[in-house]
Amino acid sequence: MKSVALVTEYNPFHNGHLYHAQQSKSITNSDISIAIMSGNFVMRGQPAIYNKFTRAKMALRAVDLVVELPAYASVSAGQYFAKTAVQIADYLNVSHLSFGSESGNMDDFLSLAQSIDKIEQSPLFLEKLKEGKSYPRILSELITDNDLLSSPNNTLGLSYVRAIQTYAPSIQPWTISRFQSAHHDNEISHQTFASGTSIRQSLMNQTDLWKDVVPCEIHKHYERPHISIEDTFNYLKYAILSQDATSLAQIYTMSEGIENRILQTIEQATSFEHLMTLLKTKRYTYTHIQRLLMNILLNFKKHDEPASINAVRILGMSERGQQYLKQIKKSFPERNFVTQVNKQNANLFTNEIHATKIYNLISGQTANDFNTPVIRI
Amino acid sequence: MKSVALVTEYNPFHNGHLYHAQQSKSITNSDISIAIMSGNFVMRGQPAIYNKFTRAKMALRAVDLVVELPAYASVSAGQYFAKTAVQIADYLNVSHLSFGSESGNMDDFLSLAQSIDKIEQSPLFLEKLKEGKSYPRILSELITDNDLLSSPNNTLGLSYVRAIQTYAPSIQPWTISRFQSAHHDNEISHQTFASGTSIRQSLMNQTDLWKDVVPCEIHKHYERPHISIEDTFNYLKYAILSQDATSLAQIYTMSEGIENRILQTIEQATSFEHLMTLLKTKRYTYTHIQRLLMNILLNFKKHDEPASINAVRILGMSERGQQYLKQIKKSFPERNFVTQVNKQNANLFTNEIHATKIYNLISGQTANDFNTPVIRI
Repeated sequence: MKSVALVTEYNPFHNGHLYHAQQSKSITNSDISIAIMSGNFVMRGQPAIYNKFTRAKMALRAVDLVVELPAYASVSAGQYFAKTAVQIADYLNVSHLSFGSESGNMDDFLSLAQSIDKIEQSPLFLEKLKEGKSYPRILSELITDNDLLSSPNNTLGLSYVRAIQTYAPSIQPWTISRFQSAHHDNEISHQTFASGTSIRQSLMNQTDLWKDVVPCEIHKHYERPHISIEDTFNYLKYAILSQDATSLAQIYTMSEGIENRILQTIEQATSFEHLMTLLKTKRYTYTHIQRLLMNILLNFKKHDEPASINAVRILGMSERGQQYLKQIKKSFPERNFVTQVNKQNANLFTNEIHATKIYNLISGQTANDFNTPVIRI
Repeated sequence: MKSVALVTEYNPFHNGHLYHAQQSKSITNSDISIAIMSGNFVMRGQPAIYNKFTRAKMALRAVDLVVELPAYASVSAGQYFAKTAVQIADYLNVSHLSFGSESGNMDDFLSLAQSIDKIEQSPLFLEKLKEGKSYPRILSELITDNDLLSSPNNTLGLSYVRAIQTYAPSIQPWTISRFQSAHHDNEISHQTFASGTSIRQSLMNQTDLWKDVVPCEIHKHYERPHISIEDTFNYLKYAILSQDATSLAQIYTMSEGIENRILQTIEQATSFEHLMTLLKTKRYTYTHIQRLLMNILLNFKKHDEPASINAVRILGMSERGQQYLKQIKKSFPERNFVTQVNKQNANLFTNEIHATKIYNLISGQTANDFNTPVIRI
């Protein structure tokens, strides 16, 4: 069976995702589509609006298999995020990986990836690296004639392509043009498609706008509570107040003394948004800081970053997805595909189980990795 | 000037405290009374109903000087609590230390202290110790003809007497009979005196009963918010969920694997009271567990237990108290009496400053050790 992987958040699922999943399956001529979905915390550095079990239910409207992207990667920036997603895709033995992009032109990605490979080996690149410049900055200085990198989904797509070339060259990358709505649009203005941001806003504000851009068969899953970043604030504040600089410095992605800045500002902060305003500097993007704060909340440590994929957590599956799973289990009997977390296999998903516990605490929910069986349709 | 120390919590201050302070001063013929008061967390293992600044204001109705009992000791059991209080009293060069007791007879305490000294050196005592029996249990087995130890304030009083004999023999202990109301009475039933428990209950339930048993000049300080142990629960749950057994085992007073029991039960606990029900065993008293949970909340570690008194924090003072302070500063120029915490001296009160931050987080208050000057009347 041919299979196509989609790296997703579904935060929450909407028509744009449905379109991408359907197009990916048909264009790559795949029998199976697999969503590699972030768990309870997502790349923007926030808790997902719905927990991963609910979002897996939504996802099964469009895909055959929903598996969990490990928690460290879910809240990570492009490169580690892409590398982990590709490794998961490879572990699942997929033939294609399809991503949405502003460009929509696969050749553009392949040729840019090639250029970057060359650039990375140039003396000029190493020189700039020694000057202490950041990787993205060097790229933007050395690649001036390519506007692919100016759009966020293109950049992420490029990370997938390069990760595939490095870690799983047997996977064929594919890109599909993102339809109409830009990723960050705040208001739903199109009839059938809208961005995740605008849909979350409609749900939070309890307007009905989201209903037009979400497949109606799954409307029933879009129920309160709607979890937002502000729900994390008191716990985050407690976590920061309970640590000293040495301990904070151990947190995943903490760098260059920003722990001191956090410790200096936390006491006066009255909300997450306020804290972000107090912390923002030119040095870091808003998202980088927000992800860092989620790593504090989740108590993710530098030395605990997972080095390899030892198991894949299956969150949901159609009958066809289940068949596919049986097939790859047969081909790769040594691989772990876990549909039910229990005491025996819990050590394979320590971080994900922990993230769920914290998500439940901040959201007052109870569905956890032990009491929630794989979702079947 | 002669001075008498009172070890107090004032949680909150009431007529019984006023009576004890006045009697102590007059019977010991002292010019100055000094309350060594617990900070924002108290011996029963809970946050104080009002913060330490408000309680210091209340205290100045009765005493000349209010100083803070260090945070580790405030949430500790009898012996370390008493030792620290006595060391603070000694640092303040007091002539007397006066405590309330059910007995009210100083000779009883002195002779029991003497008996215990002897018992501790007996072969039988060492034998029972080797059998693994706890210290209080051995005492109760070896001292069968003395009912002093059956009342909580007598037991605490005995700890003061023994700590004085060991650490500050120049201090003269004195005891005053506790007036009428038993310490744990839940309902206010007497006209002028009542227990702290019943007063807190009246305040929480917003009845007016407390007004009869609190000096009316300080009624204005008994304002909401009224902080209770349940206000700590979500943070405590987060703190426990964020740690593994190895890390929890480092917490002050954690012993004999109870960290595993805590980790096993925390996820299902829905309130502090519920958690206590889940944790309670015959092995530990309710209070021991509650104090342990406060140590988790405050992230107090075994290896951070303060070994000596390097400074005393002054929370409030009358003019007479201020004069006394000047006098002892002159006699002991090397001692630190701090009326205003700032960046330079903050390292002397790390734990107390931290406890205040956590107290403010759980209670939504803002008065902290830096922005609140010493209270003067």
